[in-house]
Amino acid sequence: MTFQLTPQLATFIPLFYVAWSDAVLSPSEVVLIQDKIKQFKWLSEDDKDQLMQWSDPLQPPSDALMLEWLTAIGQHAQKSASNGRQKLVDIGLSMAKSSGSTAEWLTDDTLKALRQLEKAIGLTSLEMHAQLLSQDQIKQERLAVLEQSSIDIQGLKALLDDDYQALRQKVFRVLQDPMFKLQHIRNKEEYREQVLQWCQLIADQGFGALHFPDVYGGKNDMGAFAAVFETLGYHDLSLVVKFGVQFGLWGGAVLWLGTEKHHQRYLKDIGSLALPGCFAMTETGHGSNVRDCETTATYDPYDDCLIVHSPSQDSGKDYIGNAAAHGQMAAVFAQLIVQGENHGVHAILVPLRDKNANVHPGVRIEDCAYKLGLNGVDNGRIWFNQVRVPRFNLLNKFGNIDEHGQYSSPIKSEAKRFFTMLGTLVGGRLCVPRAGLSAAKSSLAIAVKYALKRRQFGAEHQQEMLIMDYPSHQRRLMPSLAKAYALDFALTYLTKRFSDRTEADMRSIETLAAALKSEATWFTSDTIQACREACGGKGYLAENRFADFKADSDIFTTFEGDNTVLMQLVAKGVLSDFNKEITEDGWKSMVSFVSSRFADTIREKNFINSHNSDECHLCSADFQLAATEYRLRDLSVSVGQRLRHYIARGIDPHQAFLKCQNHLLALAKAYVDFVVLEQFIKQVNECTDSKLQQNLKVLCDLYALHTIESHKGWYLEQACMSGSKTRAIRRLVDKLCKKVRNDVACYIEAFGIPEHCLAAPIATYS
Amino acid sequence: MTFQLTPQLATFIPLFYVAWSDAVLSPSEVVLIQDKIKQFKWLSEDDKDQLMQWSDPLQPPSDALMLEWLTAIGQHAQKSASNGRQKLVDIGLSMAKSSGSTAEWLTDDTLKALRQLEKAIGLTSLEMHAQLLSQDQIKQERLAVLEQSSIDIQGLKALLDDDYQALRQKVFRVLQDPMFKLQHIRNKEEYREQVLQWCQLIADQGFGALHFPDVYGGKNDMGAFAAVFETLGYHDLSLVVKFGVQFGLWGGAVLWLGTEKHHQRYLKDIGSLALPGCFAMTETGHGSNVRDCETTATYDPYDDCLIVHSPSQDSGKDYIGNAAAHGQMAAVFAQLIVQGENHGVHAILVPLRDKNANVHPGVRIEDCAYKLGLNGVDNGRIWFNQVRVPRFNLLNKFGNIDEHGQYSSPIKSEAKRFFTMLGTLVGGRLCVPRAGLSAAKSSLAIAVKYALKRRQFGAEHQQEMLIMDYPSHQRRLMPSLAKAYALDFALTYLTKRFSDRTEADMRSIETLAAALKSEATWFTSDTIQACREACGGKGYLAENRFADFKADSDIFTTFEGDNTVLMQLVAKGVLSDFNKEITEDGWKSMVSFVSSRFADTIREKNFINSHNSDECHLCSADFQLAATEYRLRDLSVSVGQRLRHYIARGIDPHQAFLKCQNHLLALAKAYVDFVVLEQFIKQVNECTDSKLQQNLKVLCDLYALHTIESHKGWYLEQACMSGSKTRAIRRLVDKLCKKVRNDVACYIEAFGIPEHCLAAPIATYS
Repeated sequence: MTFQLTPQLATFIPLFYVAWSDAVLSPSEVVLIQDKIKQFKWLSEDDKDQLMQWSDPLQPPSDALMLEWLTAIGQHAQKSASNGRQKLVDIGLSMAKSSGSTAEWLTDDTLKALRQLEKAIGLTSLEMHAQLLSQDQIKQERLAVLEQSSIDIQGLKALLDDDYQALRQKVFRVLQDPMFKLQHIRNKEEYREQVLQWCQLIADQGFGALHFPDVYGGKNDMGAFAAVFETLGYHDLSLVVKFGVQFGLWGGAVLWLGTEKHHQRYLKDIGSLALPGCFAMTETGHGSNVRDCETTATYDPYDDCLIVHSPSQDSGKDYIGNAAAHGQMAAVFAQLIVQGENHGVHAILVPLRDKNANVHPGVRIEDCAYKLGLNGVDNGRIWFNQVRVPRFNLLNKFGNIDEHGQYSSPIKSEAKRFFTMLGTLVGGRLCVPRAGLSAAKSSLAIAVKYALKRRQFGAEHQQEMLIMDYPSHQRRLMPSLAKAYALDFALTYLTKRFSDRTEADMRSIETLAAALKSEATWFTSDTIQACREACGGKGYLAENRFADFKADSDIFTTFEGDNTVLMQLVAKGVLSDFNKEITEDGWKSMVSFVSSRFADTIREKNFINSHNSDECHLCSADFQLAATEYRLRDLSVSVGQRLRHYIARGIDPHQAFLKCQNHLLALAKAYVDFVVLEQFIKQVNECTDSKLQQNLKVLCDLYALHTIESHKGWYLEQACMSGSKTRAIRRLVDKLCKKVRNDVACYIEAFGIPEHCLAAPIATYS
Repeated sequence: MTFQLTPQLATFIPLFYVAWSDAVLSPSEVVLIQDKIKQFKWLSEDDKDQLMQWSDPLQPPSDALMLEWLTAIGQHAQKSASNGRQKLVDIGLSMAKSSGSTAEWLTDDTLKALRQLEKAIGLTSLEMHAQLLSQDQIKQERLAVLEQSSIDIQGLKALLDDDYQALRQKVFRVLQDPMFKLQHIRNKEEYREQVLQWCQLIADQGFGALHFPDVYGGKNDMGAFAAVFETLGYHDLSLVVKFGVQFGLWGGAVLWLGTEKHHQRYLKDIGSLALPGCFAMTETGHGSNVRDCETTATYDPYDDCLIVHSPSQDSGKDYIGNAAAHGQMAAVFAQLIVQGENHGVHAILVPLRDKNANVHPGVRIEDCAYKLGLNGVDNGRIWFNQVRVPRFNLLNKFGNIDEHGQYSSPIKSEAKRFFTMLGTLVGGRLCVPRAGLSAAKSSLAIAVKYALKRRQFGAEHQQEMLIMDYPSHQRRLMPSLAKAYALDFALTYLTKRFSDRTEADMRSIETLAAALKSEATWFTSDTIQACREACGGKGYLAENRFADFKADSDIFTTFEGDNTVLMQLVAKGVLSDFNKEITEDGWKSMVSFVSSRFADTIREKNFINSHNSDECHLCSADFQLAATEYRLRDLSVSVGQRLRHYIARGIDPHQAFLKCQNHLLALAKAYVDFVVLEQFIKQVNECTDSKLQQNLKVLCDLYALHTIESHKGWYLEQACMSGSKTRAIRRLVDKLCKKVRNDVACYIEAFGIPEHCLAAPIATYS
């Protein structure tokens, strides 16, 4: 042991061992223990410091220490074990006595206080334990069903959890704390305070800084941050967005756009929520089109500062999270003007209010008031009236003003600089769809569990039918279930690519992020809606969660980039990548390249113009991937030709793109369908366990064929599939829906959503 | 004049003339006037009665009386007009003096009180006047745009308003009253009281009883009731649903299922909201499957009463509007058991609580708590524990118990009796989609108006583009705009068929109502969602209305019959009608009948297997209708054959229908598409004004071709359209979207939604 084990400290070991036994010290436990300890006058300051350290959720005891504690406890427990279960305090006192004198401090009052502490911890644990117990009972009932099935639930769960299974469990364990009990708070002020408190508890666990460098309390692990974000999405989406604003956007701006000096001064306080802040980019007049935002930051050489100013009502920063109530500082995006020259959009740190929530002079803030959802987030509008901040406050990674008032940037082109700066912020686009997916999975879990107990109508003189057994109900839910798996794998792939990124990769990662953000958030909206309807009137009750899922996630299709705008970026990205593939002979050779490439496909894979409706053929990854890739390639060629044609006729590029807008959107959709399928198939192929592989393959087939089916109009129009083939696909999708339905309880179980997070009365198997 | 005109009464004439000058006495005016009058000690009771009558919104002064008043006012105004505008009170006093003595009552206090009354009415009027003024200004600004257009706004509006233009104006005028100002009340108790108060004000105008017979304060006009329902849908959907529960469902149950004795005792009080009540049909365990509900009503011959009882927790009546707070009585649907025999579901009147809201013994009520939306409606759950009610309380139109305790019914078959009883309640299915359509139209109006002022991105060095000019934005909104018109006409057709119904018609009216209810409410959900997204972050602010539209209308797809369940009824109805068309030789001849019928279509209308992609051909009603009808006919034949095939193989009908469930749903969709198009084309053809006809035709083409386009997969699969043709349709839809966009301000204007109802800050043209 590296610390001085006083008898007083020894008393606490059994208590701490139990509190830490599940590797998490939950917020309630931290508060309980620390409050008591502070009051104990019989402890020295050193001992108190040590106990504070032992109760810091950021510094869990090492495995070695836990083992040491266990051994010691075991010895003393044996010594004094007599009549049944022994109190932790008694074991502790036994340990204290063997390490020194207890005479001077062990009074009756001390003993009483220790027993109270044990009881309090015990109560908290008991509440959790009770929840675990009832879950266990439920689990046991279900096990009969689940174990008979041929589905490898743990295997599927491990795949969905990817590298962060333990971290997710830790987050779930924290969310199980009574302090996180879901409440339907209607009043926004109360709700905001609740969410701020939750956010603080999450920060106290160190979850907010995971993507920060080690020196600032982090682990430099964007994947871990995204996993926490996703897991919080099973709880309350206002908390998720508050978490995202504080640590992802505000923290991300300082981290990615600032330099060492900013990191040193701010990152630690951002990660601990000591410094709540805002990401002030969007303006009332400019949402999607950030580059034309109006706020200015003008360098004043006389007192070496920047003057931040909103020139008009519409140039106010709008919809800014943390602005209406809690934010103390903001990263403000503004046109940077130095010596009369505009260097484009840069981010500048501007203090908003002091610790007592007094707004600083020159800053005007307005509350966005009630929104459709996310009313636990304090969105606001901010205007600046000639606000002066030191030159230091320019986040200067991509554009600096030196002490002589000279502007310089490592990136010469203003356009390239702008897109590079925005590119570093792509993290948000990684996280939002993950939280959306959590809400969609929760909805599916609730709707499926309800459909497995709700009966309605049926043959005469028989028990009514489970609604899960209606083919229309299967059509409503099973393809979405499969797609939830598909998107999960695709988002994990995206996160890994982002974590391993090189600069050369960035463009294609941005395309991928934009595509998956759009696809997954639209999927979220559609799925929650379908699940609400699938639960009928029960789904309309607030207690059954769809109300909040729907309302809170609705804006996901808009923020972090409007989906329709993003999908146009995707199309442009795809066309640009595609351009690189072909030789410099231009479009003509591209067309022949595509034709030749697909000539192979036609001959070898026998899919185009084919009537082959054999189940084996339709379920082959070759066919599924070729059909999906063909749509992508063909649309790339056709829209590329159209654009070239327009431009050749002298139409300006903006107009040409406008004319092809819907065509481009179709291309972007084809791209994302292809990427998602490619990753799903890869996941299936890489699976080494044959049972698990079969489980995945069914879902993958359903996802692939349902996607192809929903574009059958296109395939038929292109005459690359016959009607008999598309009909066969429809029948096969029906069949796969039924097949997945048979194991649906297991497929849902593998999502791994604990009961305390699902929290919908209709979703209990009772 | 039929009353004694005392000098006191004469004093009030100018005030009443002005108050009634727009043919409506709004709720605020009624309260103001009546409160003051009650306090006037200088009025005789007879005079007070007369003034109460003059201020009764149900008894507007006749045109003759108004003219008489005007003449009298003119005479006295001339006499005393001297320095500019004259006070109404002074004119009134002049009139009083010429009709008798004023000495004994005209004190200074009286004069002061009269002037206060004038001022108060003036203030109310002024507030309205101010709103009208700013609307006028806005209108004038828009007129420049609108008048240049070739759209006959008033003509379109008249078609949408059908027979009830004046009534709708009256409702809008009432909703303009300050008392109806929209508030975002978060707390359900407060919101429920607000909605109850609104509902009372609406009842005070006589709107709740329009479908009742004259003797009970009504006009026997279901169309008028539906028009009010639809118009209230522009205001607040909680009010709409409360209105529907009280007057449509509760009133409808007494009206349609009760007999004269019930009408006499209850209808007047229901229409005036003196007796708030519930329609207690749905049970927790039985939502869609009403026929198997568990509540019993057992006849007890010893004291000639019915014992209403809920045998289990799940047999509680669930989701019952008016139950949690305001309902005093309920029409309870229960299995009627007489002398030990179950005669199936009947409705029985059961008192719930007294006027002081004390719940009666034996009745247990639970609040449904917060819902996704409609939190202004007090939904609750009700259980009955052996509650005794007199035999009188059986709503006995379709099943009676006589004084000897004998059950009898005019309809022998229990099944037929059940469906006949439910059929009379089809009124709800007429009304719900209309209110949904109002919400969808409001959403479209808001999204379009925003898109006509919001600019984002554009060519370099140019003003940013209006988002309405993006083809993707047009694709999002224009087809829905066209479909809103299409559904409006179809719903009017349905209402007329219901109003003119004969018993023989009922089955097909029920099919039509089920189809249109489903189609229109799904359309509502989809459209509001698309409009919210089209307004980006602005659409997410509560003040811009989508939040409430979405949340409140979401349940429309579920209540008054779950859409998916209804669509199966539709398919069965269509198949049964179709069966009647064919000869008794059975399916074989049906197939040949269809073939021969469509052989004509193929030859004459040149649409099947055709490559004809000529715009003139595609825009012909013949092609559009034939293509839509073909889908309906073909699906009828194919699903009919499948069913016959299964049944021939000995599969029981329930299983056979189950196997064809998705096929049946496709058939139901084809049916509703056909009916809606048929009505739209009829509307175009019947139009006598050529400009108006052209305006309609564009919308009709867009609706028809967009519908065909969305089923192109099916047409191509059937090989009855070529790829070149479906591509031509896609291009034409794009073109029509652009065409409608050019006149979109006018098409939206023709919806006739007043600014005070639209009430979204982003929807003002400022």
